[in-house]
Amino acid sequence: MNTTITLNDNFLEVQGKRFHYIWLRQNCLCPDCRHPTSFQGLFDISDLSSPPEPLSVEEKNGEIEIIWKEEPPHKSIFPVSWLLNHAYDPSPQQPEEQKILWDRAWLDAHPPKKYDIHSCPEDVWMSQLFTLGFTVLKNINPDNLDDFISSIGPIHATEYGRFGELKAMPNSTDIGQSLTGHALALHTDRCHVHEPRLVQVLYCVDNNASGGESLLVDGFRIATDFHQNHQDYFQILAKTPLQFQDFDPMRGYFFSRKTPILELDWEGKVAGIYFSRKTCNWNIPFDELEAFYEAYSAFCRYLKDPIYEYRFRLEPGDCLLAQNFRIIHGRTAYDPLSGHRHLRWATIAWDYINARQNFEMLKHLYLMEN
Amino acid sequence: MNTTITLNDNFLEVQGKRFHYIWLRQNCLCPDCRHPTSFQGLFDISDLSSPPEPLSVEEKNGEIEIIWKEEPPHKSIFPVSWLLNHAYDPSPQQPEEQKILWDRAWLDAHPPKKYDIHSCPEDVWMSQLFTLGFTVLKNINPDNLDDFISSIGPIHATEYGRFGELKAMPNSTDIGQSLTGHALALHTDRCHVHEPRLVQVLYCVDNNASGGESLLVDGFRIATDFHQNHQDYFQILAKTPLQFQDFDPMRGYFFSRKTPILELDWEGKVAGIYFSRKTCNWNIPFDELEAFYEAYSAFCRYLKDPIYEYRFRLEPGDCLLAQNFRIIHGRTAYDPLSGHRHLRWATIAWDYINARQNFEMLKHLYLMEN
Repeated sequence: MNTTITLNDNFLEVQGKRFHYIWLRQNCLCPDCRHPTSFQGLFDISDLSSPPEPLSVEEKNGEIEIIWKEEPPHKSIFPVSWLLNHAYDPSPQQPEEQKILWDRAWLDAHPPKKYDIHSCPEDVWMSQLFTLGFTVLKNINPDNLDDFISSIGPIHATEYGRFGELKAMPNSTDIGQSLTGHALALHTDRCHVHEPRLVQVLYCVDNNASGGESLLVDGFRIATDFHQNHQDYFQILAKTPLQFQDFDPMRGYFFSRKTPILELDWEGKVAGIYFSRKTCNWNIPFDELEAFYEAYSAFCRYLKDPIYEYRFRLEPGDCLLAQNFRIIHGRTAYDPLSGHRHLRWATIAWDYINARQNFEMLKHLYLMEN
Repeated sequence: MNTTITLNDNFLEVQGKRFHYIWLRQNCLCPDCRHPTSFQGLFDISDLSSPPEPLSVEEKNGEIEIIWKEEPPHKSIFPVSWLLNHAYDPSPQQPEEQKILWDRAWLDAHPPKKYDIHSCPEDVWMSQLFTLGFTVLKNINPDNLDDFISSIGPIHATEYGRFGELKAMPNSTDIGQSLTGHALALHTDRCHVHEPRLVQVLYCVDNNASGGESLLVDGFRIATDFHQNHQDYFQILAKTPLQFQDFDPMRGYFFSRKTPILELDWEGKVAGIYFSRKTCNWNIPFDELEAFYEAYSAFCRYLKDPIYEYRFRLEPGDCLLAQNFRIIHGRTAYDPLSGHRHLRWATIAWDYINARQNFEMLKHLYLMEN
């Protein structure tokens, strides 16, 4: 039964999907070419002196067998189902989480719950992390915090250690910890370092001071609206690299990273937002500064517009998880003399959470074929 | 003495350097606008209803005092020395390490030493990490490895924990650990995750098997030569995102990251190299695949050319530190039946090492002014 295969000069066609000989030889599934337990590639296609060429192609029992013109000839066998699952014509899309780009009205109509760590199944609160970009869990005992976070992914240590503490301190090296309880304008964390895409974990140890409410906005929603209304300003924020800097005399570090506020992916969609007034250095080329100022101010008007804002209070035992590359967060001012406000923070790379979900969705591509 | 200042519509000029009013207002150094112990920004320039405008500008005793047209008027004082140190006209260059782009001939003429951890000052071996992209230290006791690495920067934990072990294992999920002692073709680590720019730390616990030599090439040197001789291929490798994937059934992860092999910075210079045959998935758009294959094969010929290769043997107690975004590394095959080969690895974000050096070079910009 060869009816489904067509041979061409450089590729063959299987049920309407085209596969280059180069691609097929590169992806040979035999144990000499692909390691059998790690599935990692062993064959080096650049070892060939000329592009791969089949001596014969045969289909039987749902498998395609190719003998390659090599010295000695090499045999590859591909299950047709494997080929169709791995087709790149057109390019396969990675499964992507269904995002809901929210604003305040959406949240008013769909009030987010705090999920109880003891009764809420992980996939329920995790699903909100994918759709809305944040989740709040409650009733976490401080002694269990490390285990809880580590169950999601390895804790990403920083210069503060595996955990950082947020409470009013003398001579603080971050305004979030100043004795005056400054408001923290909306920002994303750690713009000044080349970090992975992080999930920020904010755990509330204590919060009985007056003020100190948490603020969140959906940066992807704002970027979408901003793009629609101000394409020129959007381009400026996507194309102008800023220098984010953090001078830390206590630990002897001077961090510096260049990135634009809006990071676009390979399809031109917003993949990340870097926004931090407190660490942002405007050393923009002289001739570009005024246009940047206009674009920046326009974007800030969106950020400050209450139609986007979600405002809530963290209670002791609550834990906020938020995608630091999507959700822009802040807090209102509080009075450190009126009581205690003490948060503990940690970070996890988003890749681990994503890799767990992809594993569930895609393991059939690897595990069924053996 | 106002001779050095010129006022213009949107900027003032100090000793030939132009400073926008926007920039000056944004950078006001007063404690209400910039936090006095963290040096972080407090003022939000987008709060102004119109671009900042001075009511008066005066110079005295090496300081420039500006009164801003605000309600109430706001006063900023800038030491002239501070302004000149922070001028952005033209844009200031971050101090950059002096790189030596090496090949084998250069290393033959300047044979790299193994530095003794007990007698070599840190700045000596560290300096090689900046110039050549790698350093080998010797005589490190395995019990001191954690302390040694942590003294450089926080250990970046991965799915393997803070440390990973490289030795032959049954059913390994990485070909580097397979029982056959496969050769590892030149590669960079962890292309399949969004990670910071890493320094790879490879510590040798044991190495008495036959084979298993370490290989390094300077990816920046190769990219430079490649660019000079094949500008078209260089552009293909810089513009074609590949999907690097790692399927880890043992831990239940399916990692996936899209990035081109050559990552360019905002000036168009190579900032990082992602190269890993074993995790690279060629799901490139159908029409681009053949051109990519040509560019890829040409690049591989450079990688495999012995004129670039540094080959050496790690002995027990040796520790290799290498910039994973510049140095491409591998090993020759070894025979696991002939003896033991056991390496321990960990990673540190390059930002910490860079931030330590920047602190020493730039602290005068912050600490002298107060």
